[in-house]
Amino acid sequence: MSQTELSEIGEFGLIERLTRDFDPKNDSTIQGIGDDCAILSFPADKEIVVTTDLLVEGIHFDLVYCPLKHLGYKSVAVNVSDICAMNATPRQVTVSIAVSAKFTVEALEQFYEGIRLACRAYNVDLVGGDTTSSMTGMMISVTAIGEVEKGKAAKRSGAKVNDLVCVSGDLGGAYVGLQILEREKYVFTQTGSQSIKLEGYDYVLQRQLKPEARLDVVQKLASHSIVPTSMIDISDGLSSELLHICKQSGVGCKVYEEKIPVNVETERVAGEFNLLPLTCALNGGEDYELLFTVDLNSYHKLAMVADVRIIGNICDASEGSNIITRQNERIPIVAQGWNAMKDK
Amino acid sequence: MSQTELSEIGEFGLIERLTRDFDPKNDSTIQGIGDDCAILSFPADKEIVVTTDLLVEGIHFDLVYCPLKHLGYKSVAVNVSDICAMNATPRQVTVSIAVSAKFTVEALEQFYEGIRLACRAYNVDLVGGDTTSSMTGMMISVTAIGEVEKGKAAKRSGAKVNDLVCVSGDLGGAYVGLQILEREKYVFTQTGSQSIKLEGYDYVLQRQLKPEARLDVVQKLASHSIVPTSMIDISDGLSSELLHICKQSGVGCKVYEEKIPVNVETERVAGEFNLLPLTCALNGGEDYELLFTVDLNSYHKLAMVADVRIIGNICDASEGSNIITRQNERIPIVAQGWNAMKDK
Repeated sequence: MSQTELSEIGEFGLIERLTRDFDPKNDSTIQGIGDDCAILSFPADKEIVVTTDLLVEGIHFDLVYCPLKHLGYKSVAVNVSDICAMNATPRQVTVSIAVSAKFTVEALEQFYEGIRLACRAYNVDLVGGDTTSSMTGMMISVTAIGEVEKGKAAKRSGAKVNDLVCVSGDLGGAYVGLQILEREKYVFTQTGSQSIKLEGYDYVLQRQLKPEARLDVVQKLASHSIVPTSMIDISDGLSSELLHICKQSGVGCKVYEEKIPVNVETERVAGEFNLLPLTCALNGGEDYELLFTVDLNSYHKLAMVADVRIIGNICDASEGSNIITRQNERIPIVAQGWNAMKDK
Repeated sequence: MSQTELSEIGEFGLIERLTRDFDPKNDSTIQGIGDDCAILSFPADKEIVVTTDLLVEGIHFDLVYCPLKHLGYKSVAVNVSDICAMNATPRQVTVSIAVSAKFTVEALEQFYEGIRLACRAYNVDLVGGDTTSSMTGMMISVTAIGEVEKGKAAKRSGAKVNDLVCVSGDLGGAYVGLQILEREKYVFTQTGSQSIKLEGYDYVLQRQLKPEARLDVVQKLASHSIVPTSMIDISDGLSSELLHICKQSGVGCKVYEEKIPVNVETERVAGEFNLLPLTCALNGGEDYELLFTVDLNSYHKLAMVADVRIIGNICDASEGSNIITRQNERIPIVAQGWNAMKDK
């Protein structure tokens, strides 16, 4: 494939080329890319939610094993995940990138192809951004905007004593997927060996490289008239997010080890690295599942929502935040999170 | 002053320390920092405008001569300027930064002090952001959100034949201010001389280091019931912005050299560098003044708006986009812009 230097087409040419085929689909997008600002208009009964994330090469992603298309997809997905964590529907994103001269136009087109796929998957419009050069490496800044019925936004602070603690999907997969990628990168850089072993790790690699925001869960909760009392997305690990909810709600929690969902492949791969699956679920980040609490009265309705499990309950702050092990031991939850684990 | 390493207080500690004293002031801000998203709510008769900018150390700013407090102020001001360019009122900003370990907590507090001053000056709320590490240097991503009465957003595409072309303030100052800073940096790095000469350059240095968004002009236009037919802020130089309006409106323009406002200090400093003041005004960027067009009927009302000058008029596209010199020569306007000049 022929490669085009960024300098050949200039900033305006580049933006035009990268952002074609991004026609707005949402009624709330009045005007997208091409002016000083995008123009949006939301129904009077909606509140707007806004979130933003910064992704830095060498800190948040490694282009050695993260294809640019996946990176584009993930950049949007992780922001959409924050919108979902408010019980809201994503509508618009802006994407800004800084890249060094080593990137070609074709490489950036791959990145924007990932952006485009994510925009389609979550039905969001790309409405703006900025494209600039960097001295070294790549940086990505995404802002996402969503809407939610007035008063129905799920904050971290709304959990009440006796609420049920729920989680979507399964946990720890993205973390062990990262261990596989790091191991194979190490083998490659140390030995130059081309025999990268990624077979048999499909699920955990996908969890790491192409995480999905759980918009489907938000929609299912709405269709069963379940309004979470609190919600957060699991980007730093279950422990850290549980503590956020407990701290901001002024409550404690009991979560049962046996209830925490871990995929069978995640368990197997954790074993390869001599890691406890529970540790990966509690402290491994980037699963982007939803952690939320619901009123006890929603118990029967919850049973009809696929791919959501009740893992414990909210209790008084005086009881603390604890994991109850299979041996019925009570272990205080400690924030560790993804970054801390990575430094080990 | 004692200095605190970033690693000493951790990410959550840092965010808490940097974002205290940022209580929301606007009715439209329902919830600011501290959850997965900010929550906003706007009146039913308003449209929302959104813009975002990425600023990279070594590309957009030089910490050798740009104090962090000024940089914080400018980061917000340039985004507010884009909101103003839509004829809108800024309401919220998010600010994300990536910094290397060389930055101290106290240095970042200086940066956020600048953010705080700008938020006060323009009455906007800081409602979110992201703080992360970078491998090298500093990167800043700001998103600004504003509101405008439905249908009153000023696009680049609305200029009509016979409209008056107007500009606020004066032009070229930020560019010659940058020349002063680059000259003194050169002297300092080449000779180690501490005798930096910045006296007598107050105006142009302020234009470069602490530009202001012209929210006052937007407010004055509104108070005189003037709705611009098109508008853009001058970030890349008058030439480039005139061509944006003409291209997107499908029109041409005639702009008169003698009408283009240049400050007397800008003229003097341009002379020091053997630059034509007109060249600085046309191609020097970062003045963040407003360029806009109004219907001929607004002529008398415009006279009551201080600090705004009529510099020409819109004509048919077939006549092209031209500068009429003091010698009555017609010179086609060419996009050159700030980046192109900087590479020279």
